[in-house]
Amino acid sequence: MGLLVALDRPGGYEELVGKLCSRVDGFKLGLPLLMARGPGYAGLLRRRCRDALWVADLKLADIGYVMRLTAGLVAEHVDAVIAHGFVGVEGALGELKDYLDSLGKRLVVVASMSHPGAREAYDHALPRILETLERLRPWGVVAPATRPGVVGIVRRRLGPGVAIMSPGVGAQGAEPGSALCAGADYEIVGRAITGSGDPVEAAERIRREQEARLSNCRGTSHGS
Amino acid sequence: MGLLVALDRPGGYEELVGKLCSRVDGFKLGLPLLMARGPGYAGLLRRRCRDALWVADLKLADIGYVMRLTAGLVAEHVDAVIAHGFVGVEGALGELKDYLDSLGKRLVVVASMSHPGAREAYDHALPRILETLERLRPWGVVAPATRPGVVGIVRRRLGPGVAIMSPGVGAQGAEPGSALCAGADYEIVGRAITGSGDPVEAAERIRREQEARLSNCRGTSHGS
Repeated sequence: MGLLVALDRPGGYEELVGKLCSRVDGFKLGLPLLMARGPGYAGLLRRRCRDALWVADLKLADIGYVMRLTAGLVAEHVDAVIAHGFVGVEGALGELKDYLDSLGKRLVVVASMSHPGAREAYDHALPRILETLERLRPWGVVAPATRPGVVGIVRRRLGPGVAIMSPGVGAQGAEPGSALCAGADYEIVGRAITGSGDPVEAAERIRREQEARLSNCRGTSHGS
Repeated sequence: MGLLVALDRPGGYEELVGKLCSRVDGFKLGLPLLMARGPGYAGLLRRRCRDALWVADLKLADIGYVMRLTAGLVAEHVDAVIAHGFVGVEGALGELKDYLDSLGKRLVVVASMSHPGAREAYDHALPRILETLERLRPWGVVAPATRPGVVGIVRRRLGPGVAIMSPGVGAQGAEPGSALCAGADYEIVGRAITGSGDPVEAAERIRREQEARLSNCRGTSHGS
């Protein structure tokens, strides 16, 4: 059962990371934060919680050459980098994955998004993106908590080995634990924790809600 | 007839921008450069060539909230920001466009890419991305020089008012002038200029090749 905290908005998170370190599984650093503070800020935050899972959410979507240049700036400070499945393997994600492999880092690929505009092109591309993912075999996949069906499809197509991360819990409307029930490994929560007056209490409450829902759905799905 | 120089690789470009200023129409700043040097570096470069067209090639592909945060970091230093058409209007590009409009800045949207991996999902989404562009009516569109057919489709669908920018000239194989002949306003050239031993001579040569090809294709297409 996993909980990652999204740190997107430019700001100072050293204290927050220290407080949340023992209570969550990792942190997802957004492009606005990394651009505003510089890639080295990821290293500074990591020193507050070294053993967590650190993910650079660059949402890369370019040719391989440019994605490698961008990922290379932050790779030393994180465990994984996020890119879009939309750009395909050849000349793009394939090159990025080889590069990250050579650094001992992991690639996480967006399979689907949950905002309304995703209906225009992204949703229709899902079958093709799933084919891309099957060929590429990235370490992780992003699939939204608001679309548990997509989480389930990714799990069935890529098997138990892939790490599935689901944003959309909290401010975007999905209940804590709902993506875990659908097969995700991590739920990504941003503003519901970082925007809370008491982020530690918020994280602990979300943990409890994840556990409650997960024990419920596992009970149901296994008939026990 | 337009020529934009792509500055993608992290590095110092103050001198280069000053030398090229009177010879090109503008500069496209890549995400690796802006992440490595910080958004303020765009302002520092701009002071070397204030009246050129400055484009932040962030290749944004996220929900509106995150794209606005990212674009807001660099908007004051540039004229336009690039985002991906595949994320759609609602909750994404629509919010970004409203935000940029409020700042007096322009949105440029990627309609198509030219690397081989674009065949996997991006190409199939073109009809839907064109619908997104027709609804959104961005100031500019990116369509690759290596796919002149796509440049022509964008021009016919969005009319004479949209600014079409075409990467892929030079290192990626398209001849200077070929995208202009297909209907583009600007060709984007990176390594063929920045990687040249004499960037000024390279830019002037590309200008001449653009002019030659353009007068040829215009002569042909107009039968004069």
